[in-house]
Amino acid sequence: MSELFVYVNNDLIPAQSAKLSVTDLAIQRGYGIFDFLVVVKGSPVFLEDHLNRFYHSAAAMHLSVALDKTALITAIHDLMNKNQLPNSGIRITLTGGDSPDGYSIGIPNLIITQNPFQYTYASPLKGIRLITHEHQRQLPHIKTIDYAKAIYLQPTIKAAGADDVLYHNAGIITECPRSNFFIVNKKQEIITPDKQVLAGVTRAKLLLNKQFVVKEEPIALEDLANAEEAFITSSTKNVLPVIAIDGKPIGNGAPGPVTQQLLQWMIQEKGILFTNS
Amino acid sequence: MSELFVYVNNDLIPAQSAKLSVTDLAIQRGYGIFDFLVVVKGSPVFLEDHLNRFYHSAAAMHLSVALDKTALITAIHDLMNKNQLPNSGIRITLTGGDSPDGYSIGIPNLIITQNPFQYTYASPLKGIRLITHEHQRQLPHIKTIDYAKAIYLQPTIKAAGADDVLYHNAGIITECPRSNFFIVNKKQEIITPDKQVLAGVTRAKLLLNKQFVVKEEPIALEDLANAEEAFITSSTKNVLPVIAIDGKPIGNGAPGPVTQQLLQWMIQEKGILFTNS
Repeated sequence: MSELFVYVNNDLIPAQSAKLSVTDLAIQRGYGIFDFLVVVKGSPVFLEDHLNRFYHSAAAMHLSVALDKTALITAIHDLMNKNQLPNSGIRITLTGGDSPDGYSIGIPNLIITQNPFQYTYASPLKGIRLITHEHQRQLPHIKTIDYAKAIYLQPTIKAAGADDVLYHNAGIITECPRSNFFIVNKKQEIITPDKQVLAGVTRAKLLLNKQFVVKEEPIALEDLANAEEAFITSSTKNVLPVIAIDGKPIGNGAPGPVTQQLLQWMIQEKGILFTNS
Repeated sequence: MSELFVYVNNDLIPAQSAKLSVTDLAIQRGYGIFDFLVVVKGSPVFLEDHLNRFYHSAAAMHLSVALDKTALITAIHDLMNKNQLPNSGIRITLTGGDSPDGYSIGIPNLIITQNPFQYTYASPLKGIRLITHEHQRQLPHIKTIDYAKAIYLQPTIKAAGADDVLYHNAGIITECPRSNFFIVNKKQEIITPDKQVLAGVTRAKLLLNKQFVVKEEPIALEDLANAEEAFITSSTKNVLPVIAIDGKPIGNGAPGPVTQQLLQWMIQEKGILFTNS
């Protein structure tokens, strides 16, 4: 594969030249926001939703975006034309910029990267295992670059034989570091935490599903024992079954029928055709 | 002033060339640690304490440091010789490194920057105003690069006519984003929060003061009304009076005698001679 290009502040440059000064506030103070979307057969999935959230995150963090939405879409398409990666992930990052005093916001740096990505599904569908951890993301409604706790916990997750961590705040479940969390209760209702979580794009789409009752409501840790099914959602994971939490099986410990139906539905909503499923 | 040099992974390079790839985990996920120390007349202040904390932070975040302590001290002195800045601040940063998948830790990047800094004191001594905000730093014992909440709050702090923010956790005071917090109670005891705070180097020195009783104990928000004095400590601030919190004066609303005595003591401990005080 030839070297990929990266968009940096209005230029398309080779990936190995895409760098930021060590005075950037992302490096000095972990200050920045981003969004991530999937491209399937040359089409960005839910582009508008991701860009709306990107501008929301930027404004909430007091960061100005040099490009308006139209210009940003043009930049994304220019990058896609340059890289010719019809199946890929696109990440749009906005940092705090070079800071004169190491603390004040500078002129934000806008970076767009593109890397190969393809949805793949095992048949039969596999589920993942989670551990729980008490932690409240500090700015839950903003897609900041802050994943310090999540990456810090990786050895703990691995030691537990799990795949990811599920955060809770005083026993009330919120989300995973990179995905939203759902359970299916005994009434076949789909429940997702209502507060202190990121407004996931896939989550928002799932809330519009008409085959099932989908509700935003608090989920306590003790509710997990009565859940029939559980799953997480994200742009890259779509709908991914959760089969065990803290070593205890969810339902019968296998991907459930509702989860699988929702996955199929989401695949259709996203206009994704799987040749490899 | 001629351009300053920066240490980046074993090289001394001009500051404008000191850059990291946009794939570094600091930029992608806000993942990194640092330490900061002051150089006075060519002497790094409490170098050993800062380096010990740096290695502690690195290990806690699963980041390896390419240099052992002796080699790191040599690198710092090489940089100081190159820059010839006898009064300065030195920042040692260790990032998560270039991450192949945007989430896993890579080979950490080690950066040492040096910038002019000089202690200055107004006479009479001035105090600062704080606002309080409920927030618990997510990894309080580690000096991570995460200041997202602190910088996010800057407009709120300015709108309140304050200088900085004091965090509390369910009404129990912890610290400011870049400094430790102390009060002087009616018994002339010095109290600083005992839990969930960064192990400040200046804080640790102050705990060794023998002129006063200095204790690590919980401080509740309501204790502020009875405080005779309050102050914050850090490597750059030494001992800085706090004269008001949430618009209410502390004590008589002016820098207090105990605070000023402790500042003088700390200046002596640090071996700092002020020609401009």
